[in-house]
Order: sequence, then structure tokens, then C-alpha cells
Amino acid sequence: MTFSEQMKADVAQIEAALAQYLSRETGEGYDRIFEAAKYSALAGGKRLRPVIVLAFCRLCGGEADKAMPFACALEMIHTYSLIHDDLPCMDDDDLRRGRPTCHKAFDEATAVLAGDGLLTAAFETAAAAKGLDAEAVLRCVRILGREAGMNGMIAGQVLDLGAEHRRISLDALNLLQSLKTGCLLRAACELGCTAAGCTDARTLEAAREYGEKLGLAFQIQDDILDIEGDARTLGKTTGKDARDEKSTFPALLGLEACRALADRLTGEAVAALDGLPGNGFLTELARSLTGRAN
Amino acid sequence: MTFSEQMKADVAQIEAALAQYLSRETGEGYDRIFEAAKYSALAGGKRLRPVIVLAFCRLCGGEADKAMPFACALEMIHTYSLIHDDLPCMDDDDLRRGRPTCHKAFDEATAVLAGDGLLTAAFETAAAAKGLDAEAVLRCVRILGREAGMNGMIAGQVLDLGAEHRRISLDALNLLQSLKTGCLLRAACELGCTAAGCTDARTLEAAREYGEKLGLAFQIQDDILDIEGDARTLGKTTGKDARDEKSTFPALLGLEACRALADRLTGEAVAALDGLPGNGFLTELARSLTGRAN
Repeated sequence: MTFSEQMKADVAQIEAALAQYLSRETGEGYDRIFEAAKYSALAGGKRLRPVIVLAFCRLCGGEADKAMPFACALEMIHTYSLIHDDLPCMDDDDLRRGRPTCHKAFDEATAVLAGDGLLTAAFETAAAAKGLDAEAVLRCVRILGREAGMNGMIAGQVLDLGAEHRRISLDALNLLQSLKTGCLLRAACELGCTAAGCTDARTLEAAREYGEKLGLAFQIQDDILDIEGDARTLGKTTGKDARDEKSTFPALLGLEACRALADRLTGEAVAALDGLPGNGFLTELARSLTGRAN
Repeated sequence: MTFSEQMKADVAQIEAALAQYLSRETGEGYDRIFEAAKYSALAGGKRLRPVIVLAFCRLCGGEADKAMPFACALEMIHTYSLIHDDLPCMDDDDLRRGRPTCHKAFDEATAVLAGDGLLTAAFETAAAAKGLDAEAVLRCVRILGREAGMNGMIAGQVLDLGAEHRRISLDALNLLQSLKTGCLLRAACELGCTAAGCTDARTLEAAREYGEKLGLAFQIQDDILDIEGDARTLGKTTGKDARDEKSTFPALLGLEACRALADRLTGEAVAALDGLPGNGFLTELARSLTGRAN
């Protein structure tokens, strides 16, 4: 299979699994919450995190199917974070993945609860994983908790809120993004390995390094697109960072230096997997991300 | 130890453990989120749910210490649900446990994130439980996910939001409360047994029955207190249900019938544990709850 065939097949499987996990029978009167959760979780998107979970599972010799609960759990966590991030009291965004944000399509209370529901469903889904030993499942649940938690992604959100309307240093921005975006990407890499039963410290470190570098490259590219992109093709509001006076990589470094930095980080992500057999897909994935504007 | 001595000792241990779980070292600039989480989690309260976890663990012959991670996880989930429930877009409450609600003491964005953080920390804490086998830990994580999720407590919140400013039937109110309050109380009972290694279906069913009846009795008592209580001793806004035109048990049944129903449910909770050795503490606990206004 070529890279893009594999990508397409994985995304299709992930979306089918996500739809199934979120389609449990509901009681009378509260199906609205499942509708809201599915509205946001099944609205397209690149599925980058779950694709990485499956890819690292294969890289470590595991069957990708066994990693699917963790892949979907991670995507649920990513989706919940977007729903809450878009709320009026947070980034106050109207558009996400080309459609009205959850609180616009439903209402604010439903959006808060749909986010809560997806976060809870993520852990329930992960803990119900079949076909691998209970210790490995628990390790995966702990990875999710650690990387999504108050010393992980949520810390990044807190720093992000504190960085509005003021200039922060490049170091501070690096830390912010390493938490806000990096944590879930590192989690994706580690979850894939762990689902395959891998406990080798060097492989796990290489995987996390890949996730770290890829996360930063991805975020820089995202900042560039916020300036250069077009709301219609991106499916979200652009030019918002400048309007919110957010400290971004282009604001601190300029566009040209950003492009060079994204390229360098992509190279470092690829280099982290040097010597690991079967790294072809993940190498192409990294390279495709910084080229995604083309 | 008498009932109240045991209660006091358990509450002290639970609060010490909670404080420890929420006191992990934090990085520069985002300790605010831990402050907010601790502000709400360590603000007192009856600690009913974690006390029940420990009590059922003892009833099933387990060491209460081993159930502590699940007891604290459940209290974190309860606390997060209060923080989000108090938000302006939900119940819009200013006072909780005698202090300004989280979004009043901090701000709305921090309150959303502190709730998210507590929910995530709950699963992380549960999945890190030591001293019992991985299968039992996973069962506990799944109980938490199921009872706190979109077919559990969150469904109750959704029904609750839909029940504002209109009269609902007694059946609808029973379902609402069975989900909104009952799920976490049933979870408490089941978690305690499971942490003790109990997998006996009859014991687990009796435990869940106790939680179900206790939850309803407790909620009815809460509704009564909302009418009769005093904001100063209760530590929260009273008379709010009537102002919000919420359908409550007293509104549907009248105060006298409510008192009788709470008594009957308390009796049924106690009866559910008939014949289980060591049920003394839980029997007294049930009886103390409906008498808590005295």
C-alpha cells in the first residue's frame, strides 16, 4: 500500500470505530448529548493522532486493531479539548472543521457536557480494550491521563490563556506548545508502541521524540496557515491569532524563519526513527505535514 | 470505633489522600489550575461517596487503603461535576460549600479547565492504584467511566437541564435523579467491593441496590433542605429550585410525602445489606443521612 492508500484506509477504519464507540444505545431524552459528541467527533479532521497510534503499533510489530481503542480514545480527548477550547469563556470560536462549533450548533451547556462526555468515554473506551494483557491496558490508560491532564495538555491550555494579549518569549511559547499540542502527539506515539506490547525504553524514547518534534513542526505550520490560509479550505476562522494578539511563532520569528524551523523539526522527527525498521509511513507522514499547505 | 469516630477518621484520611494526589509538582506558570482544582476539591463537604467506597471495601474483607485511589477518583469526579454544574451556562451558582464557586473565585475558563483536570486526574489516579491485580484495577476504571459518562451521570445532567422551567412527571424525575445522583453512589458501592477483589454477583447487586436507594433518599432530603434549610449552615444557595421552577420531589409530592418517601428509601437501602456481615457502618450511614437536618 502506498502512503496515501494506508492513510485513507486508516482514517476510514478510525472513523468507523469512533462512530461505533459513540453509538451506544441511549435512554429517552438524553440522546442530545450523544448527538453533540458525534457532531464534533465525526466532523472530519485529519485524524493525525489516531493514525500515529496505529502506525507506531505496526512499527512495533503489533496488530493495528488492538491499538484502535487507544487511537479512538485519544481522538475523543482531542475532540473534547477543541469543544471546550472553542467555548465563549475560552477562545470563543464560531467555526471548526468547516462547521459551526459545538456550542453554536447546540448550546453552551450541551457543549460543556459533550466535552465532559467525550473525555469520560475516552477512558472508558481505553479501559475496555481487548486482546492485550491488563497491565498493558493500564499503562495506556495512565499515558492518556498523564498527557491529557493538568501537568500535560491542560497545563498548555492554561499557559495559552495566560499568553493572550501579551508578548511571551520563544522559550515560553515552546513550553506552551510542547504541552498544548505536544502532549497528545507524544501520547499517540507511546500508546501505539505500548499497545503492541513494546516496553523497550529506547524505542519509547525515540517514539516520544518523534511526537515532540512533529508536534512543534505541526503547530508552527498551523500558525503559518492562520496567517496565509483561507478560512474556506481550512474550515476554521483564520487571522484570529493576530486579532487576539496571540504570541505565535511567526509573530516572534517571522514567516521565513518559521518555515525553516518547521523543516528542521520535521527532519529531526524523521531522524528520531532512524534505524527502526518499518519507519516508512511515519517518515512520509512527518514530511507530508509541513507540506500540507501545498 | 463508633460510627462517628470511623466517619471522622475516614474523612481525614480521604482529605489527606486527595490533597496528596492534587499536589504533584507543577511547572512554572500553570499552578493556577492546581490551585483551582484544590480550591474546589478541598473545600470540605461530606465526602459521602469516598466514605462509601472505603466502607464497602471493608465490608467485603478488603483493606480500605487499597480502595483509596478509587475513593479519591470518585470524589474528584463528583467535584468536577459540581464545578461544571455551577457554571453560568449551567446552573449559574455563586455559592458552594460555603464559599464562592470556582468560576467566581477564579474565572470561567479556569473553572472549565479545573473540572476537566479533575476528571482526568480521577482516571489517572484510579489507573495508578497499587496492591491489587491489574484486572481489578481495570474493572474499577470501567465502573468510573460507565457511571460518570454519557449514559450515566452526564445523562442525568442533560435531563436536569431539560427539566428547567417546566413540570416533569415523577417517573421522569426518578430517572433524572437515578442518573444524576444515583450513578456515582452506585459506583461508590461497586468500587468498594471491586477494590476488595469481590466479584460475587449477589453482593455487587446488593451494594448497587443500597447505592440506588440511598441516592434517591439523599436527593429527596436535599430537595427538602433547599426549601427548609438555611444558606449559612448548608453552605449553598437555598430556595434556588423554586426560583428556577425546577421539578423537585417536594414540588411534585409535597413535603410530608417526601419525608415519608425518604424514610422508606432509607429502610430499603438498609434492607439491601441484610445478612451481609459487617453492615453496621453502612446501616448507620444511611440512617444518618435522612436525619441530617436535625
